[in-house]
Amino acid sequence: MTPILAVGSIAFDSVKTPFGEASRIIGGAATYFSLAASFFTDVRLVAVVGEDFGDAELELFKGRPIDLAGVQKVPGETFRWKGEYSFDLNNRETIYTHLNVFADFRPAIPEAYRDSPFVFLGNIQPELQLEVLDHVSAPRLVAMDTMNYWIERAPAELRKVLKRVDALLINDAEARQLSGEPNLVRAARCIRQLGPKLLVIKRGEYGVLMARDGEFFAAPAMPLEEVFDPTGAGDTFAGGFVGYLAACDELSEASLARAIIAGSAMASFSVEDFGVERLRRLNHEDVRRRFAEFKRLTHFEAL
Amino acid sequence: MTPILAVGSIAFDSVKTPFGEASRIIGGAATYFSLAASFFTDVRLVAVVGEDFGDAELELFKGRPIDLAGVQKVPGETFRWKGEYSFDLNNRETIYTHLNVFADFRPAIPEAYRDSPFVFLGNIQPELQLEVLDHVSAPRLVAMDTMNYWIERAPAELRKVLKRVDALLINDAEARQLSGEPNLVRAARCIRQLGPKLLVIKRGEYGVLMARDGEFFAAPAMPLEEVFDPTGAGDTFAGGFVGYLAACDELSEASLARAIIAGSAMASFSVEDFGVERLRRLNHEDVRRRFAEFKRLTHFEAL
Repeated sequence: MTPILAVGSIAFDSVKTPFGEASRIIGGAATYFSLAASFFTDVRLVAVVGEDFGDAELELFKGRPIDLAGVQKVPGETFRWKGEYSFDLNNRETIYTHLNVFADFRPAIPEAYRDSPFVFLGNIQPELQLEVLDHVSAPRLVAMDTMNYWIERAPAELRKVLKRVDALLINDAEARQLSGEPNLVRAARCIRQLGPKLLVIKRGEYGVLMARDGEFFAAPAMPLEEVFDPTGAGDTFAGGFVGYLAACDELSEASLARAIIAGSAMASFSVEDFGVERLRRLNHEDVRRRFAEFKRLTHFEAL
Repeated sequence: MTPILAVGSIAFDSVKTPFGEASRIIGGAATYFSLAASFFTDVRLVAVVGEDFGDAELELFKGRPIDLAGVQKVPGETFRWKGEYSFDLNNRETIYTHLNVFADFRPAIPEAYRDSPFVFLGNIQPELQLEVLDHVSAPRLVAMDTMNYWIERAPAELRKVLKRVDALLINDAEARQLSGEPNLVRAARCIRQLGPKLLVIKRGEYGVLMARDGEFFAAPAMPLEEVFDPTGAGDTFAGGFVGYLAACDELSEASLARAIIAGSAMASFSVEDFGVERLRRLNHEDVRRRFAEFKRLTHFEAL
C-alpha cells in the first residue's frame, strides 16, 4: 500500500461534554489521523511521547498498518490537554494545555521514511513542518493542517510551508483569517495563490467544502443522533481523506470527491464515542456502510 | 399546472449590506416565495398591500403565472422593514419593522382558491395560518414557515397549525428552539411527532437538511463569489421547493430531493443581487444550469 508519512501530536486528553467525562484518554492529532488513515493504507507515524506513554498505550496502534519507528519516547510527560464542550457541542473551552515533551519536539524522520509518497503535516510549528519537508524526497502529495495560532504568530514561516504543500485542510474561520476575505470563494482563490492547489475547508457539523481550480465539491456531515465527543473529528477526517487518496494513489476529481466522503465517514464515527473508542472498535464493513449512507444522504437525479 | 396557494407578507424593504444599500425595494416573504415558485408552477397569492403599492410595483408579478386576485389593497401604508447585515453577512440587525396594513391582515381566500392542491403558509400569526387552512378543502400538501417569535409567543396556536401541516420549513436555531433539543436528529423526530411528516431545516450558507421518516437528505449551498443580499433567501428556497413539488405533483423521495435542489438553486440566485433584482432577471435556462452545477458540486461515485 502507498504509505503516508504523518507528523503531529500524541497526547493524553481529558474531555468533558454534556454527556460525560473522560480523563487521560489517548488523543492528539497524529493519533486520530493515523488510526483513520490506517483503514485505507500504511502509515508511518512521526511523533513524540513521554515516559508515561507505555506499551499499554502503544497497543492502540498495534495490529494496524501503522509503523511506529518514528515515534520517539523521551524523558518527561506526554502532551496533555483538557477541554470542555458547550451544550450543543459547537463550542469548546480549553481548560489546560501542557505541552510537556511536545514543547521540544523535533521530528526525527527515519531514513526509511524519506521516500514517502504521501505526507501529512499535522498542526505543529510551521518551522517543524518545513524541516519535515526537507527530509522527504519528491512526495506526490503533501497535505497540511494549521491553526489560528500559527496564522497569527508565524505568518512568514507559514507562508513558506504553504508554498511547498499541495493540500491545505483548515476550518472556515481559519480560511477567512488566513485570506482576510469573508467570502469563501474568494478566500479559496486567495489561499490557492499562496501555494496549495487543493483547499479543504472543514465546517464541523455542516460538513466540508473542497476547492480546486475554481471548482468546488461539498459534502454535508452525517446527521447523527449520538454525538458524544467532537475531539479529533478534523484529524480523523484528514486521515480518511489522505488515506483514501494514498490507497487509490491518484488525484482525479472522482478520487478527490470520494476521499472527501471517506474522510467525512471516518469523522462521523469518531464523534460517536469518547476519544478514539469508536475508531478502535470500527471495522471495514462499518466504513463501507457509512460511505453508502453518505450516497443516500446526498444523491439526487439530474433534471 | 398544479397551483399553489401562498399566503404571506408583501413589503417595502430597506437593506444595507457591506456592498451597498437599497431603499424601499419590494420585498416580503410572499413576494420572494411566489416569484421563485412561478418558475415551476402557478401561484395564487394571498397578501395585503397599502395604497402606496401601485401598478408600478404590481408590475413585478405580471407576465408570470401569479394570480393576484387574493392580494388586497387597503387604506394605509404597506409593511416596511429595514435591516442591516454584518461584514460576513451571517448576522443581521433589524433597524425597524413597521407592520402598517399588515398589522390587521386577515387573509381573504377567494372562492376559486379553495381547491388549491398545494398550500404555503408563510411566516404569519399561527391563528391566521389556521384560518387559511379552514378555507381550503383537502390540499395534497400544506407547507409552512414560522419563526422564533411565534415559537415563544404563541406556542399553543403554533402546535395547532403544526398538527395540520405536512411540511415545516424553518432554520436550525428554530428547529432546536421548537423541539428543545440541540441534536438535530432528535429535534427532527420530535418535530415530526408534532405533525409535519416532512421537516426542512434551512442552514443559510451551509445549505439545507431534510428529514422524513428518519431518513435525511442534505444539500450544501452553492459557493458564490458575490453574495450581495441574503434577504429573502429562505422564502425563495421555499418557493423553489414547493414550486418544484407542485410541478411534478408527487412526493416521492426522488422528487423531494430534487425539490431541495430546486429551492437551493433559486435561493442561490436570490442572494446575488439586492432584493428581487436577480429573480426578476432570471430565466429558465439559468435555473437548469444552476441545477446542473449543484449536481457537479455534490456528485460522487459509490465505492
